Amino acid sequence: MLGARKRTLKYVGALAAIASITISIVHISESAAQGGKGGQLQPGTSTASNKAAPVFGIKIFPGYRDWALVSVAHEAGELNDIRAILGNDVAIKAYREGTLPFPDGAVIARIAWKYVPSEENDKAFGRPQSFVAGSAPDWYLQFMVKDSKKYATTGGWGFAQFNKDGNPSADAAKLETCFPCHEPAKARDFVFTRYAP
Amino acid sequence: MLGARKRTLKYVGALAAIASITISIVHISESAAQGGKGGQLQPGTSTASNKAAPVFGIKIFPGYRDWALVSVAHEAGELNDIRAILGNDVAIKAYREGTLPFPDGAVIARIAWKYVPSEENDKAFGRPQSFVAGSAPDWYLQFMVKDSKKYATTGGWGFAQFNKDGNPSADAAKLETCFPCHEPAKARDFVFTRYAP
Repeated sequence: MLGARKRTLKYVGALAAIASITISIVHISESAAQGGKGGQLQPGTSTASNKAAPVFGIKIFPGYRDWALVSVAHEAGELNDIRAILGNDVAIKAYREGTLPFPDGAVIARIAWKYVPSEENDKAFGRPQSFVAGSAPDWYLQFMVKDSKKYATTGGWGFAQFNKDGNPSADAAKLETCFPCHEPAKARDFVFTRYAP
Repeated sequence: MLGARKRTLKYVGALAAIASITISIVHISESAAQGGKGGQLQPGTSTASNKAAPVFGIKIFPGYRDWALVSVAHEAGELNDIRAILGNDVAIKAYREGTLPFPDGAVIARIAWKYVPSEENDKAFGRPQSFVAGSAPDWYLQFMVKDSKKYATTGGWGFAQFNKDGNPSADAAKLETCFPCHEPAKARDFVFTRYAP
C-alpha cells in the first residue's frame, strides 16, 4: 500500500514537473513576444488562466513582476495596504525623460500587499516602527495600459484589476469608475504616481 | 563677449556630452559584466564620483535602479521613510527559489525616501490616507553584497550606504554596526526582507 502510494506520488510529481515546464515555456514565449524582461512563473500570480478583465479586455502582462520600480506608497484607511508601482520599459523611459503624454505601449502595474507590522524588524530596531508587505488583498494587481486609439474615450488608458490567483477582481461597474477618479491628474496624463528617483 | 561665451559653453557642452557617453559606456560594460539589467545613469544618483564606501569597499552598482523588486516597507519613528528593496538577478533568483544562503554575487539594494502625505491623492480618495515617496534622506541608498570569502567575518555580507548624490554617507563606525544588527536574521542568511510575491 505504502509502495503503491509512493509510486502514485512519483507519477503525480512527474506530471506536475512536466506541466510546470510547459507553463514556463509558454510564459517565456509570451514575455519575449511582448519585449518584457524575464519570463519566469511569478510566485503568487498564476497567469495560467490568462483571463481578460472586463471593459478594457486587459490580460496580465507576463514578466510584469520583473519591471523596474516607479515608486512606492502606503494607503491607510479602508485599503490599509503598502504598494509598489512598476513600469514596463516604455513607461519607465517616459517617466525618466519626462515624456507626456505617455506613448502608446506604456504599461504601469500597481501591486498591493496588506500593511502589517513586523515584530522581527521592530526587535532589531529596538522599538515598534516597522511595517512591511503582508498577504495579498483582493485588489492585489492593477494595470494601466496606454493605447490612445483603443482607449480614446478614457484618456487613452485602459484599466484592469486582478487578485493574487490571476483572476480579474473588479467588475465592469467598478472599472468604469477608474478613469473619472484619475481625471484630477490630467496634467500628468491621468497618472497619479510620480517617479521616485 | 557673448559670442565667446557661447563658444565656450558649446565647448563645455561637447566635453560634457563626451564625458557622459564615456561614463555611460563604462556603466553599460560594468553592468553587463555583473549581469545586471540596463546601464543608464540614474536620475538623482550621480555615480560619476564612483567613490567606494569605507570598510567593505563597495561602490554603487550601475543599473541598480532597474533591478526587480523584492519588497516594500515603511519605517516610522526617527527614520520616517518609505522604502523599496531591490535585488540583482542573482539575488532575485535566490529569493524566488528559496535558496539559502544567498550565493556569491547576490546584491540587495535598499532605496529610502521620506514618508510624506499626498494631498493630491487624498483629494482623489476623498479622505486623508495616502503616503508617498518624498525627497531623499541621507540614508537614501544601501547595498548588501554577498561574497563569502571577502566578507567571511560578517556572515559573507558587505554593507554600504550612499546619499542621493552618490557619495558614501555612513562612516566606518556606523557600517561596523550593520552586521551585528542583522544577526537576528541569521536563519535567513542575515537578510531581514522577505520576498513579496
